[in-house]
Parts: sequence; C-alpha cells; structure tokens
Amino acid sequence: MSDPSFAPRPTLEAVAARAGVSRATASRVVNGSEGVRAPLAERVKRAVDELGYVPNQAARALVTRRNDAIAVVVAEPETRFFADPFFAQQVRGISRELTLYDNQLVLLLTEGAADYERVGRYLGGGHVDGALIFSLHDDDTLPALARRAGVPTVIGGRPDWSDGDTLYVDCDNRGGARDAVRHLLNLGCRRIGHIAGPLDQTASVDRLDGFRDALPDIDPRLVAEGDFTPDGGSRAMARLLDDFPDLDGVFAASDVMASGALRLLRTRGCRVPEDVAVVGFDDIVSVAEWTDPPLTTIRQDIEEMGRMMARLLLRRIESGAAGADAPALSSIVTRTQLVVRASA
Amino acid sequence: MSDPSFAPRPTLEAVAARAGVSRATASRVVNGSEGVRAPLAERVKRAVDELGYVPNQAARALVTRRNDAIAVVVAEPETRFFADPFFAQQVRGISRELTLYDNQLVLLLTEGAADYERVGRYLGGGHVDGALIFSLHDDDTLPALARRAGVPTVIGGRPDWSDGDTLYVDCDNRGGARDAVRHLLNLGCRRIGHIAGPLDQTASVDRLDGFRDALPDIDPRLVAEGDFTPDGGSRAMARLLDDFPDLDGVFAASDVMASGALRLLRTRGCRVPEDVAVVGFDDIVSVAEWTDPPLTTIRQDIEEMGRMMARLLLRRIESGAAGADAPALSSIVTRTQLVVRASA
Repeated sequence: MSDPSFAPRPTLEAVAARAGVSRATASRVVNGSEGVRAPLAERVKRAVDELGYVPNQAARALVTRRNDAIAVVVAEPETRFFADPFFAQQVRGISRELTLYDNQLVLLLTEGAADYERVGRYLGGGHVDGALIFSLHDDDTLPALARRAGVPTVIGGRPDWSDGDTLYVDCDNRGGARDAVRHLLNLGCRRIGHIAGPLDQTASVDRLDGFRDALPDIDPRLVAEGDFTPDGGSRAMARLLDDFPDLDGVFAASDVMASGALRLLRTRGCRVPEDVAVVGFDDIVSVAEWTDPPLTTIRQDIEEMGRMMARLLLRRIESGAAGADAPALSSIVTRTQLVVRASA
Repeated sequence: MSDPSFAPRPTLEAVAARAGVSRATASRVVNGSEGVRAPLAERVKRAVDELGYVPNQAARALVTRRNDAIAVVVAEPETRFFADPFFAQQVRGISRELTLYDNQLVLLLTEGAADYERVGRYLGGGHVDGALIFSLHDDDTLPALARRAGVPTVIGGRPDWSDGDTLYVDCDNRGGARDAVRHLLNLGCRRIGHIAGPLDQTASVDRLDGFRDALPDIDPRLVAEGDFTPDGGSRAMARLLDDFPDLDGVFAASDVMASGALRLLRTRGCRVPEDVAVVGFDDIVSVAEWTDPPLTTIRQDIEEMGRMMARLLLRRIESGAAGADAPALSSIVTRTQLVVRASA
C-alpha cells in the first residue's frame, strides 16, 4: 500500500545518525541538557534543523505519529446525526472496537458543509491518527479534504469514485435488494414497486440496481424516489398507489421509509401483507420491530460494520508505519440477510 | 482568575528578546534559513533551548496555545449518551455556539470510567483548548482528571464540590421544584409525592430540596427514588400509590420518569389529572408534548444552557490568555419556567 501521507517524520534516531552521535547524546542536546561538548551539540542542532525534527516533549505525538485517537466525521448536520439511529449504531460499533485497542474516539460534529474547512484543519493538525468518514452524497467534499489533510481514512459506505487506494466498508446493497425483491416474487407478488433513497447516494443506486436485477424490464414509474425519512416514504408510497392501483408488493430502500409507507397504506385502507407486502432495508431494530405490522427487511449488521471500519483503519495506520513490507488492505463488503417478519 | 494551566508558552518574540536580536532574525534561525551570522544564530538557538521554544511549524498550535477546538466529554457510556434526548439538545446548543466562533466541537465518547485515563491523556495532549464536562455522579473522577490535564473547563450541572474556581452552568433546580409543588398545591392537591432522581446527583438533590421547601414536614415515604428512566419512574410511582392510596399529586424530577409514572397510573386505572395530577421537569419537547396526557413541567432551556457553557468556556480561555487583567468569571444559574399542559 502506498500512501503519500505516510512519509515518516524524522525520529531522534535519524537525528543521531545524521549528526554521527549516539541516540543518548542526541537526546541530551535535544532536551537542552548540559554536558555535551559544543562541537557535538552543534552537529546535533544542525541535524535537527536539516531534518525538521520536533524536539519538544509536548510535541512527541508529532514525532511518533501516534495520538491513539481516531476521528469520526459525519458529513451531515448534527441534527440529522442525532435523529438517525443508523449513526448511533455505527458509532457504537466504532466506539467499542477503538476502546479494545485503547484508542480514543474523537467525534467531530458539524453544522454543515461550511464547517468542513475547520474540520480539515483539525484532521491535519496532528490531533488524530486517522479518520472514519461518513460521506453520503456524491458531491460531498469531505473525503477529498481528509486526503489533503494527510490522514489515513476509511469511508463508511462505498464512495462513488474508486482510485484503488480508497478503503471503505459497506454491505452488499445490490445483493440485498435482489433478495428483497425475490422474496416478494416468491410470495406471489405480481406488481412490485420500489421506494428508492436519494439517488445521489451510492447505497440508493446500488439498491435500485438490485431491484432492477430481479425485475429487468419494468415500468420506470414503479420506482419512486424518497429521502430516507418516514414522510418521504409516505409520499413515495402514495405516488406508487396512485399510478398503480394493482400494486401488491413494495421494496423500500430503508426501514425508516418503509415505516412511512406502512402508515400511508393504513390510511388508504390497504392491509399489509394481504393487499400489499412490504420489505424494508437495514433492520434497525428500534424501527423494524416496532412498526405495525413488524417489518420484513434486509439486515445489515450496522454495529459490526462500525467495528470493521475501526479495525481496517487501525491496520491501515500500522501498515503505513510498516512501509513497503505492509500487507495489502482491501475494502470490505459484508453480506446481508433476509429477516422475515409479518409485513411480507 | 488565576489558573496555573495558563502559564504562557514561549513565543518567538520572547526568543528574540532573550537572544537580543530582531524577530525576523530569530524567525530565520528557527526556520533553518541561511544568512544569519553564526554568533547571532548561536544566541538564538541558545534562547530556543533555554525557553523551550517549539520551532516546528506543525507544532504552531503548541506555541499559540490555540487549536480552535473544544472537547465535550460526557461521563456516561455512549449508549446512555445516545439514548437520552437531554444530551442531544445540550450538544446542539454547544455545536451552534462553537460554530459561531469557528471552534471545532470534539466529542470524546467513552464506554465507561475505565476509559477516563485515555480521555485525560487526550485532554492533556494539546489537542483542545478547553473542555465542557458533563459529570453527573458525585463520585465521578472526570472533572479532577481534566484539571490535572491542565485544560480550562466548564462543568454542565452544579458539581457537588465548590472551590471558587470551578465554573458551571445549571438551571435553578431548587426553585423550579418549588414552583412545581406550588402549582400542585394551587390546584388543590393535598397528598403530594415526589419521584426523585438518583440522589448521588446534585440535580436530584436540589430538586428534592425544592420539594421539601414547599412541603417542609412531610412523611419521608412520600419521596421515592427513581433513576431518570421511564421504568424507574413507573416503579417509583407504583411504590407511592401502594403506600398512599389517597395520593393526588406527583412531582417527578424529570419528564422521562414522569412518562413512566403516567404509564403506571394508566394501568392502575387512575385518571390524570382528575385522580392524580403529574408535573415533570426539563420540558424535553419530544417527551413532554407526546405523553398522554401531555405533561405539565418545569422548563429549563437545555439548548441555551449548552450555548452558555460554550461561551463561558471561550471567555475563560481568553481570560486565561489575558492574565491578571482578565475580568472575573462566574458560574451561571438560569431560571426555570412552569409550562402548563394537561397533566396538571
């Protein structure tokens, strides 16, 4: 793995070698102790200057390159962050895994994209060893900014670019979506609609692709775009029912949108699953088990994906320190699983 | 205000003054430029050593002492943090205020007290300019740890110690509790119980004191201790009803506990407010407006208290930089307000 951000900072050993003195002598000079002969001390100081070595003890972290701290940045306003149970579950996994390795979770909250420059300064300021970034929208500038800041990163969710060097953790959104639609087909559904997420997010696009894999030649109006909120799910559901009164199955790209769809179906007097079967995505327990009826859904292990992100980043950091001998690292795509409850 | 953590770090000006050279000359030497005569350069280097000046540009923050970043530490496991709407609201206020001042909010999550040492290392590592600490339990070691780390702090909620130098932001818990009980008395309640919070928290103790101010000579069994959860509220309510079948009013020390009390009253067939009037505390809108019936409660402006904490800390940091000329700062206790809804 090559990553330009891993150019090693000069060590005290490097200073000693350049000055042609022992490490102990270099250390005494750097720490301002007396008792080193002037010519030797001068050579050490010159080596410090030439290498850009940081002598201050308080700046040790800048030398060792380790703060034992990992940033988590969510490219969403903090209001969305606290409202969406998905983030809480993923941060839980990250927190537990980092704690195992005695690394501090440093959550950088923002009010919006206007704050990114400040986040970039913090990431580049030597305060963290790496960053876990949740960047949901294709036009989001946060990952590029983290790269410029020179910190190793792992992205939560497949980014819409691929440069071979970007590591991410995601679930098999496309395969999961295929499973959802096949379950509806197996139940005998003949007119199946899809409530998609915002199509500037790869998770939404991948789930739509999975839907189309299972139903290749479908009327495009059977896809209604939502926004990952309950209200968005309700509106999309209403549109689908208006266009297709014979609709008998719906795959919603998130449990939260499915919960809104269920609400709309109830107000229209449609029974679930008798009239319309509904499948969600995520298996966020606080949502899927509490809808009426409880949701059949595609499970992704959100907390475990948080743990995987943390582990992958820590290995990337170690691997950077190991240089050319480091093992190659790859992005991780986890399997999904159909969870059958009452809604389909 | 005197705070030993504010001993100023040496500046380039101080180096220049000590070496008897201009700032520009000192800068050239420190940055390793050529063109400074050897004796002058030597004097600058000696001054750097003697003062412990940190020359590296990447370590600038260590010199200016400003990272434009503020830590928020919650002395609760992250599960509790995400489950309790109180924290989300307070962090919202903090985030908005810090953003106004272009300071980065750095949320340090923990799994429990075993992680405090690591948090202390981060706080003391020069990564943040100050810390906002939510320490709820009297035996909590986090505030002491932050003090040892040498970062300016402001505490959320009155701590159980007072050393004249500790700054905190809280609401008038005692006065608010008095208002709650007086409201019940004005409604004609004659047998009023109190569901207290855990009594190792000052907020709980202060609210209990307010309850006793309004009802000085009361049977101590009219106070049942809860734990700030809905279930704890239910259990305490059951105990009060069992001991006092003629109970006609309850003041719960939080909306969340009051919601549990309302649930228990419903299962016992007690009408609210006809049989038992209920008053909560906090006015967390997502709780108080959604109970059945909606809760009469004592409002504290949680988001605004978050803003106040942020402002007070930023002033403490500036004030530390200003030294002896700095204006004195004081803790802030905000007023509460009775909000009348259907439950009382």
